[in-house]
Amino acid sequence: MEKSFEKKGLTPKSENISEWYQDVVLKAGLADYSDVRGCMIIRPYGYAIWENIQKTLDVWFKEDGVENAYFPLFIPMSLLAKEKEHLKGFSPELAVVTHGGGEELAEPYAVRPTSETIMYKSFKKWISSYRDLPLKINQWCNVVRWEKRTYLFLRTTEFLWQEGHTVHITEAEAEAMMFKALRWYQKIYEEYLALSPYVGRKSENEKFAGAKTTYSIEAVMPNGKSLQAATSHNLADNFSKVFEIEFTDDQGMKHNPFQTSWGLSTRAIGGLILSHGDDSGLILPPQIAPVQVVILPVFSKAGTNNTEIRAKAEQLANELKLAQIRVTLDADETHSLGYKINAWELKGVPLRLELGEREMAENLVSATRRDNFEKLKFNQQNLTNAVKQALTDIQASLYARNKVLKTELTKEVKDYTAFKQVLREQKVFVRVFWCEDKACEQQIKEETKATTRVLELEHIDQNEQEKCFHCGKSSRRQWLFAQSY
Amino acid sequence: MEKSFEKKGLTPKSENISEWYQDVVLKAGLADYSDVRGCMIIRPYGYAIWENIQKTLDVWFKEDGVENAYFPLFIPMSLLAKEKEHLKGFSPELAVVTHGGGEELAEPYAVRPTSETIMYKSFKKWISSYRDLPLKINQWCNVVRWEKRTYLFLRTTEFLWQEGHTVHITEAEAEAMMFKALRWYQKIYEEYLALSPYVGRKSENEKFAGAKTTYSIEAVMPNGKSLQAATSHNLADNFSKVFEIEFTDDQGMKHNPFQTSWGLSTRAIGGLILSHGDDSGLILPPQIAPVQVVILPVFSKAGTNNTEIRAKAEQLANELKLAQIRVTLDADETHSLGYKINAWELKGVPLRLELGEREMAENLVSATRRDNFEKLKFNQQNLTNAVKQALTDIQASLYARNKVLKTELTKEVKDYTAFKQVLREQKVFVRVFWCEDKACEQQIKEETKATTRVLELEHIDQNEQEKCFHCGKSSRRQWLFAQSY
Repeated sequence: MEKSFEKKGLTPKSENISEWYQDVVLKAGLADYSDVRGCMIIRPYGYAIWENIQKTLDVWFKEDGVENAYFPLFIPMSLLAKEKEHLKGFSPELAVVTHGGGEELAEPYAVRPTSETIMYKSFKKWISSYRDLPLKINQWCNVVRWEKRTYLFLRTTEFLWQEGHTVHITEAEAEAMMFKALRWYQKIYEEYLALSPYVGRKSENEKFAGAKTTYSIEAVMPNGKSLQAATSHNLADNFSKVFEIEFTDDQGMKHNPFQTSWGLSTRAIGGLILSHGDDSGLILPPQIAPVQVVILPVFSKAGTNNTEIRAKAEQLANELKLAQIRVTLDADETHSLGYKINAWELKGVPLRLELGEREMAENLVSATRRDNFEKLKFNQQNLTNAVKQALTDIQASLYARNKVLKTELTKEVKDYTAFKQVLREQKVFVRVFWCEDKACEQQIKEETKATTRVLELEHIDQNEQEKCFHCGKSSRRQWLFAQSY
Repeated sequence: MEKSFEKKGLTPKSENISEWYQDVVLKAGLADYSDVRGCMIIRPYGYAIWENIQKTLDVWFKEDGVENAYFPLFIPMSLLAKEKEHLKGFSPELAVVTHGGGEELAEPYAVRPTSETIMYKSFKKWISSYRDLPLKINQWCNVVRWEKRTYLFLRTTEFLWQEGHTVHITEAEAEAMMFKALRWYQKIYEEYLALSPYVGRKSENEKFAGAKTTYSIEAVMPNGKSLQAATSHNLADNFSKVFEIEFTDDQGMKHNPFQTSWGLSTRAIGGLILSHGDDSGLILPPQIAPVQVVILPVFSKAGTNNTEIRAKAEQLANELKLAQIRVTLDADETHSLGYKINAWELKGVPLRLELGEREMAENLVSATRRDNFEKLKFNQQNLTNAVKQALTDIQASLYARNKVLKTELTKEVKDYTAFKQVLREQKVFVRVFWCEDKACEQQIKEETKATTRVLELEHIDQNEQEKCFHCGKSSRRQWLFAQSY
């Protein structure tokens, strides 16, 4: 087991996860601070992860008939104010443009915190008949929510996201669409980011401002905190009524349609980093890693076989490239092998291949898995298949490890004393029977900083005769509580 | 020759190109107006064209080692003010955020009109050695420039673009990079958008605020106006000095590096629409068209063979899809064939295929080219190749037609009287010997609204002993003047 965090100047993850996180984000070249309060710079290595997420989701969206579009960055304040709950939810977080082209504006504009209001004004115009439905629009863009305390990727004033907005004839169709989006998010977290999040419904306190119901993906961070990692909302006809969106059915009758909205942001990258990394730096799951394999030729001082080693390394890199594996050959001779190993470990590249005189003689490639530092030997002749298998194993193993973590960091208790006791020992998710009352949740939050994260999908139909762990009122279902990012 | 603009409610292009443009943008579903002054909504059909442009350029950028990143939307005013010429150029167009999170900001932020200043602050931090160079960063994002008079796609307060920013050891390297970007732009216009723009250097009056030299792509619109369609700037060390970007060479000496920036925006879509459309609507070049081929089954009233026709149409659509052709099957039975033909013509789909009883009997498919309404017959057995060939022909023919237009709309004159005479008759590009003096250009602009568009690449080394067509001072090179969008 190699331990090289000292060399890299990384705070060990086990010692202080917040400092480790900040160190690794900066040193691995994922992001940087900017001169703008609360806004970060996403550097190429971090942006490449975002591009992989985009590419994956975008294909699924399009297969389902969701079309990309682009709506204005600015929203007139009067438009934002149309849905009262929505305005109340977002107004404390707004950035406001008051001047344009050297003049004070007659009406200030908000920089979009989300685009329901600006989009639905147009939807009213575009929809008249049932034949115009379903309407499924997605937008990849930046949004701004003024934050007091910010955190690279996890909470920034500006962030990148996608926001899907759909309109349907029936509420059942909207509900199905809301679940479809939720499943896309679950899939990208589980199969690409190798995380095993909780998936479920939000409480009344925690739902989206203006939604009927909000479902969410909650990722379990190694420090026991919850990261709200994507949300999908059933807006019912709340917005369509306010924005007067109407369709005529085949009998000539007018109705307000039913809507959904759903989003996933660059915050996902924060959850990815926090979850998988270790004292040597990042660990990226192969499915999402910008570089899946790095090849390091091991040049000898004597240099007898260096030309052959370099040529073989290039040939193997090309073979892997042809098989659609994202491979980098690092043949730089100005840095030592040790330096390069540290650097690529820090960047979390899932698989490292080394090729030196010994490997040449034995017709092998030495491999090291980033997730567990396991050493492997691959035959040069069948490298592509061996690498593919290793990447599949790493992906599976990271996911399995995260699933274990989730179980370890989830407790079940019966009463408030036990609840507080558990949370005093360590931040965890706690599953409890709860009454689903707003005021009760508010009180628990004030006393423990923990809030409901979700009612897990598996618990929605739970129907037991229990008492609320906090207030003692009747409760039929178990909810997950945790502190959140 | 079919003429169906009446049915579509389109103003004929020949009658009023501005009204035609607005009609076609709205009716073809490319874009829509919004409630936000000067900001447009890019609808899915328009956004799909932008995605095709993005995909094409992004591959070329990455092959060259340009990496995507993301910098903040907001720029502190003090940072924007660092390069004086740059500030002077952009300050009349700024949108300014004065409030955030319910409080007035200590320092207002500009919404980025371009990102030189916010990026170069970071470049200073990231660059220390010659080993850090070249640095090549690109960003796909929205920018805001407050416009008094706006025009869908062609001039909007907010628009989408890519901005490339590179840093080099030598000015020669920067110059080469600037040309490389310019060639990418030329290539996407010529080979994808089927336009034949002028390519050359900008005058001192017209260059980018802060650049040493600006090169530009100027597309010739059918009304004789020029559309600045992409720009590439050699920034020399203007910004690196102001932002104190320094690298240490291999001798340990410090230097300011040399920079470029280059951008292409959603304005390109405006040029595309204006150039190729006709009285029936849009005409999209196959290389960039979201839908390259539409298949219309021709159902008969009797309906005897409708099932077979539909099945065959589906089979042919699948064959084309497998060959990576972007095909849509419009088997909708609620609208007449004539209605559907009009709608797909309006949307500018390059090739329309029809399949009815007659075609079934003859084992054929009837095809109509959108560019010239030519009717073709394709054998069903070899449809993919025939379609590919037709698409290639349409692409080539649109490009050739635009090249002819460019020649027709370019005049060469000797003196100012002839210059004014030519421009009185019709808006055109005029090639003239000009002294390259700022004040002279300003005077011409005030008197004729025409400005220099470019010094064509082929004319940069021109070295004749002539007189300026306007002021009579000595001139060695011919420049292109025109009115611009």
